[in-house]
Amino acid sequence: MSKLLIRGATILTMEGPDAIIDNGEILMEDGWITHVGLPGSAPGYFDMDEVIEADGQVAMPGFINCHTHAAMTLLRGYADDMPLMKWLTDKIWPFEGRLTSEDIYWGTMLACLEMIKSGTTCFCDMYDFMPMVAQVVEKTGMRAVLSRGMIGVAPTGQRALADAEELVKEWNGKAEGRITVMLGPHAPYTCPPEYLDKVMNLAAKLKVGINIHVAETRTEFEDILKQYGKTPVQHLDSLGLFKFPVLAAHCVHLDQTDMEILAQKAMGIAYNPQSNMKLASGIAPVAQLLELGATVGIGTDGTASNNNLDMLEELRAGSFLQKVSTMNPEVLPAYRTLQMATIDGALCLGLGDRVGLIKEGMRADIILIDTRQPHMCPQHNLVANIAYAANSSDIRTVIIDGKLVMLDRVVLTIDEEKVMAEVQQRAKRLANES
Amino acid sequence: MSKLLIRGATILTMEGPDAIIDNGEILMEDGWITHVGLPGSAPGYFDMDEVIEADGQVAMPGFINCHTHAAMTLLRGYADDMPLMKWLTDKIWPFEGRLTSEDIYWGTMLACLEMIKSGTTCFCDMYDFMPMVAQVVEKTGMRAVLSRGMIGVAPTGQRALADAEELVKEWNGKAEGRITVMLGPHAPYTCPPEYLDKVMNLAAKLKVGINIHVAETRTEFEDILKQYGKTPVQHLDSLGLFKFPVLAAHCVHLDQTDMEILAQKAMGIAYNPQSNMKLASGIAPVAQLLELGATVGIGTDGTASNNNLDMLEELRAGSFLQKVSTMNPEVLPAYRTLQMATIDGALCLGLGDRVGLIKEGMRADIILIDTRQPHMCPQHNLVANIAYAANSSDIRTVIIDGKLVMLDRVVLTIDEEKVMAEVQQRAKRLANES
Repeated sequence: MSKLLIRGATILTMEGPDAIIDNGEILMEDGWITHVGLPGSAPGYFDMDEVIEADGQVAMPGFINCHTHAAMTLLRGYADDMPLMKWLTDKIWPFEGRLTSEDIYWGTMLACLEMIKSGTTCFCDMYDFMPMVAQVVEKTGMRAVLSRGMIGVAPTGQRALADAEELVKEWNGKAEGRITVMLGPHAPYTCPPEYLDKVMNLAAKLKVGINIHVAETRTEFEDILKQYGKTPVQHLDSLGLFKFPVLAAHCVHLDQTDMEILAQKAMGIAYNPQSNMKLASGIAPVAQLLELGATVGIGTDGTASNNNLDMLEELRAGSFLQKVSTMNPEVLPAYRTLQMATIDGALCLGLGDRVGLIKEGMRADIILIDTRQPHMCPQHNLVANIAYAANSSDIRTVIIDGKLVMLDRVVLTIDEEKVMAEVQQRAKRLANES
Repeated sequence: MSKLLIRGATILTMEGPDAIIDNGEILMEDGWITHVGLPGSAPGYFDMDEVIEADGQVAMPGFINCHTHAAMTLLRGYADDMPLMKWLTDKIWPFEGRLTSEDIYWGTMLACLEMIKSGTTCFCDMYDFMPMVAQVVEKTGMRAVLSRGMIGVAPTGQRALADAEELVKEWNGKAEGRITVMLGPHAPYTCPPEYLDKVMNLAAKLKVGINIHVAETRTEFEDILKQYGKTPVQHLDSLGLFKFPVLAAHCVHLDQTDMEILAQKAMGIAYNPQSNMKLASGIAPVAQLLELGATVGIGTDGTASNNNLDMLEELRAGSFLQKVSTMNPEVLPAYRTLQMATIDGALCLGLGDRVGLIKEGMRADIILIDTRQPHMCPQHNLVANIAYAANSSDIRTVIIDGKLVMLDRVVLTIDEEKVMAEVQQRAKRLANES
């Protein structure tokens, strides 16, 4: 049995705004949180395999990135500030067409390195060559929800279904339970109804959820409306998609009925504020969705449209964008926003019984933040300082599934220099092959 | 004569998108940039007082924060997520009413510490007890444009005019030329026409510019329209304000004529995207203002409404917000946004002949950014990596007016621990006195 103790931290359990423990202790045994309490309250101090002294640091649940395409780190800065279709057809798709499975491995490795260093302990990924991604998750110690992206209209549509089934069989529940697999039909405009039928049959057979992009752009909204006489959400609903646990990414362009459907029927919605802003896709009506009772998590999307995987930056942009777009400074207050980045993200991924809180009985995905920084001084309000002033370099230590993955900014499971060198070399090759 | 040399850096001169020098050298003599060139090109290598080896780092002009209230670091996290008037009347103003000149000194010291650590070399401040602010600027080595905030409708209105005059006489051009003083009438709704007349007379007499908040909220826009039959900008124009060099902060609520006036007549506009978002004030039409030829810089506003002084975060939010609000991903591209945070900021403050570029004949306000970080890998595009992916902890070294102010993250002019302890203690006292 491995036993790990954090002492001296201010614990932001995320069980509620007042559930903050000063100078607290967190005991972890075999990856489980078995005790959360006051100083000196954890049993068996002398039996510990490791004790982390965390004076002046805040312990909180790790961030959950509800929507990304991790290997797209290879494309970071490759194409920016362009109209969407030109960006995709001239730059992104040709580059992606040259990616090998080894490229995916190293691009995902870089993404995991960046995510760990910025406090993300779990991410939801949709891309190609997913067994490589699963290997990276296993090696780096991260937690992940993985989907093979499936484009029904592409020649690879059938192969993608087979790949997805294999991914579920090979990897669902693997890496000591840190990997969950979902099916990833790309979007309603790339997956026609007959293809989505196949996806739903597969989901029923394999008993897994569905991860899909929905209503990301105005063009998609209008095209689907023209083609099917229904909005994207109502189109998917009429096909029966929401009978399955569905994570819907983006959800920018919605009417009132769409919002009600999502609030009542979707497992979760991934809000990607920076990507939606940078691509000028629009502003998701998150404040209204929350009013209706929807479960909303936060995602960075891929680094081609962000351009980083920094969840602190993302949650802050997400809060501020809702305030200005609703003309109401009270929406998405600091604590609510941190919930979206932790426990609500876990709920969106079907992991709400496992991670997202610092609570006995949960798996131990915990980050330590050093708040003794000029930009978090004074300490009037810990929650506001983290949500509105912290930056990702303040995250000192990361524990995932009860294992130390980063200690005092040193990532223990990844060779940082090697990964950056590999990616730099591969990115250069991929860019020059155009 | 002091001689300082930077070697091995990639130099982003900000003289144009192609004006990037790999492995370059920057020579600084007595605070002036006297040479910018290729490796080995700087004369007199063996005469240097200091040589900074900057391999793998990017040298660029320091960020210019065009609008803040530095001492408000004391209020960081004190009140968030509230409606504007309740926030001001219940929380901000009572707290501010308790501030002493010593509080201002330490609050500003913390702000300078935070700004230096996040790569800001020059800031534009409007607040009270400005001689204390000037002392901090002198001690910390920063560059600043200082204004005594003047509220015409307040009992302190007359005293503020006298204070402002004294500030000009005591501090304009001081601290080895690093301090410029402007007059700071707060806003059209707090400074009636007869008061603004006095301000303009004083500006003419002292030959200084004017720093004013304009059209920050919809309420202000409507109130001024009701009271004077003119929009805030047209009201100020009719009073003759724009005959002076005017820095107009916020400029969120504008009609077409307002935009044309500002583009043609204002020295500069300070765009404060995060504060405008967080307070739900609205979105300044910056893309349109730029189209019309306006000079626009970027400001953080005070930390009560931001909640940090991080210019990288601010410029990124500023770019993304314009893209989404204009539904055009091409506006405010990466390089243009970095210009706003450097040379255009300098122009807004009347310092365009002195700072904002790495160029012979300019004063040496330079930052070094370590781009060898996972979140800036790969290096497809240096400019995009800085504008869209860097974070403030990547800034390693800061030179202001040719003097080293931070070297490898250690601020040389400020006792970091002492400042944080002082501010924490004062903030606690100020909060508990309510």
